[in-house]
Amino acid sequence: MTTLASIVEKAAMQNDPIVAVASAADMEVLTAVYEAVTNEIASFVLFDDEGKIHHLLSQNFQELLSNEKIKIHHTENLTESAVEAVKSVSSGQAHVLMKGNIPTSVLLKEVLNGEYGLRTGKILSHVAVFEVPNYDRLLFVTDAAMNIAPDLDAKAQIVRNAVSTAHVCGVDEPIVAPLAAVETVNPAMAPTIDAASLVVMNQRGQISGCIIDGPLALDNAISIEAARQKGIAGSSAGKADVLVVPNIEAGNILYKSLVYFAEAKVGAVIQGASAPIVLTSRSDSAESKLYSLALAILSTSKNPSRT
Amino acid sequence: MTTLASIVEKAAMQNDPIVAVASAADMEVLTAVYEAVTNEIASFVLFDDEGKIHHLLSQNFQELLSNEKIKIHHTENLTESAVEAVKSVSSGQAHVLMKGNIPTSVLLKEVLNGEYGLRTGKILSHVAVFEVPNYDRLLFVTDAAMNIAPDLDAKAQIVRNAVSTAHVCGVDEPIVAPLAAVETVNPAMAPTIDAASLVVMNQRGQISGCIIDGPLALDNAISIEAARQKGIAGSSAGKADVLVVPNIEAGNILYKSLVYFAEAKVGAVIQGASAPIVLTSRSDSAESKLYSLALAILSTSKNPSRT
Repeated sequence: MTTLASIVEKAAMQNDPIVAVASAADMEVLTAVYEAVTNEIASFVLFDDEGKIHHLLSQNFQELLSNEKIKIHHTENLTESAVEAVKSVSSGQAHVLMKGNIPTSVLLKEVLNGEYGLRTGKILSHVAVFEVPNYDRLLFVTDAAMNIAPDLDAKAQIVRNAVSTAHVCGVDEPIVAPLAAVETVNPAMAPTIDAASLVVMNQRGQISGCIIDGPLALDNAISIEAARQKGIAGSSAGKADVLVVPNIEAGNILYKSLVYFAEAKVGAVIQGASAPIVLTSRSDSAESKLYSLALAILSTSKNPSRT
Repeated sequence: MTTLASIVEKAAMQNDPIVAVASAADMEVLTAVYEAVTNEIASFVLFDDEGKIHHLLSQNFQELLSNEKIKIHHTENLTESAVEAVKSVSSGQAHVLMKGNIPTSVLLKEVLNGEYGLRTGKILSHVAVFEVPNYDRLLFVTDAAMNIAPDLDAKAQIVRNAVSTAHVCGVDEPIVAPLAAVETVNPAMAPTIDAASLVVMNQRGQISGCIIDGPLALDNAISIEAARQKGIAGSSAGKADVLVVPNIEAGNILYKSLVYFAEAKVGAVIQGASAPIVLTSRSDSAESKLYSLALAILSTSKNPSRT
C-alpha cells in the first residue's frame, strides 16, 4: 500500500522543486522548512524580515544559515511577504506556495490577484490525504477546509482537483465516492442529488480519470462488507480512494475524527491555482507539515511552470 | 469512566421493563431479543406471525419458547404488527418500542398516529452513545439519523433529548458542543449562528441541565490541547459529552467514522416520543443492539408511563 512516507520519498526524487514561504519568520514554520530540507525534498525562498529569520535560524537551525537550499528574501510586512512570495511562484522562480505565520485570508487575496496571482479560472479546493490505521489504501478527503457549501459545478471541480492529486500519488484511476447520509437518491437530501449528477458527469466524460460511485454513506464507501449488506452492487463500493463530503462541516468533522479518534496520519494541499499551495496550521504536527509539502511538491510535476 | 457495558448493568437493575417488538419474526431480531433476555435487561412482547416466530425460536433459541420473559402476539401483516406494538406501548403494557424486520417509515407512521401513537409534541431525534477507545468519557452524538437539516428550534429539542439521555446514563450536567467547521461565529456558516443561539438559550434557561459551549470544531470540542492551541478559554472546551452535528450528513459520517475507523462501540435510541424507540439496522452488531436496548430501557426510568 502507498503510505505518506512513500509520498515523501517520491517527492525527494523530483527535480529541484523550490517552495516560496510567505511570512517565514516563525519557529514552527522554520521547523517545517528544516524537516523538508533534511528529507531533501525541496529548496526554499523565505519571505519575511531578514534579521528576524537570521535570528531564529541561528537559535535552532544554524546549519540552515549556510545551506544552499535556503534563500532569504527580505520583506517589510505581511502584505509584502505575501505579494512577493506569490510573484515568485507566478514568475516561475518557485513552484510551490507555502503559508507561513500569516492569516490565510491575507495570502489568498494575493493568490487571487488578477495581475500577478495564481488564478486559473478553476476554483481552489482543499485535498487531504489520510493514512488510516485500518484502511488498506490512502484516503483522499475533499473539501474539508475551503469551500463551505459547494454547488454541483464547484463539486465537479473539487473532484477534478482531488483526482489529479490522487494521480500524482500513484493512484491511476481512483474510485470517488460522493458521500451522503444514505445510498439512494432522495429529493429531500440535496447531497444525494449532487452525487447522482457527479456519477453521470463521470459516465459522460465531463469528469475523467476516475470512477465515481455514489451517493454512498461512509460505511458503504469504505467497507465492502457494509456495501454487501446494503445490497449495493458494483466493483467499486467499499473501496473508495476519494471521499467527497457534501459540505465543510461534514468534511471538517471527518478530518478531525480521523486525526483524533482513528489516529490517522494526514497531509493536505490546496489545488486549483497555477501552483499547489500549502496552508498548514499551528495545530498540525511537524510530520503532517512534511507530508503536506511532499504532496504539494509531487503536484508540481504536472505543472507547466516547472522546467 | 462510564462504559456501555455498565449501561447494560444499569438497565438490568430496572424494574421489569417490557419491550414491544414490531415484526419480530427475523433471526437477527430474535438474536437481539435472546441477548437481552440472557443479560436479564427486559421482557419482550413479539408482534408477528406466531407460527413463524415459533419456527425461528425452535431452530436456534428453544429455551426462549418456554421463557416467561417472552410473549408472542400474533399479527397478520407488517402494518398490524406496527399498530399493535405501538398500541401496547401507548397503553402502558410495554415501555419500549423496538423495530423488527419492518421499514422504519412503516413503524414511524404508527408512532406518529394522533389517536393511538406516541406523539408528545416534541420532535423525535436520534441519540447515539459511543465508547471511543481513546476518549475518556461516553460521547453522545446527535442527530446522525433522523432530522435531515434541523432548524434552530429543532436543534434545541435535539439537544434536550440528548441531555435527558445523558442524565439517565449518569452524566448529570453534560457539556454540549454544537459542532461547526470553525470555532467563531461566521455569518457565512449557518451552523455557527445556530450554535451561538443554543449557547444563549442555555444561559437564559431555555435549555437546562447542561452546559452548552460552541461553536466548536470537533478537535476543540474533544481535545483540551487543541482548544488551548486555538486560545479557546473556558473549562468546558475539549471535554464535550454531547456533540450536536449541524446536519444529517455530518452526523452520519461522524457515526460511521467512529465505528469503522476508530473502532468505537455504539448504542442508539430515538427520543422525543412518549417512550424510547429502538431502531437497530441489519448492519448493527449484536453487541450494538444490546447497548441500544439498554439505553432505551434506562430512558424509561423517567417516563411517567412506567409504574
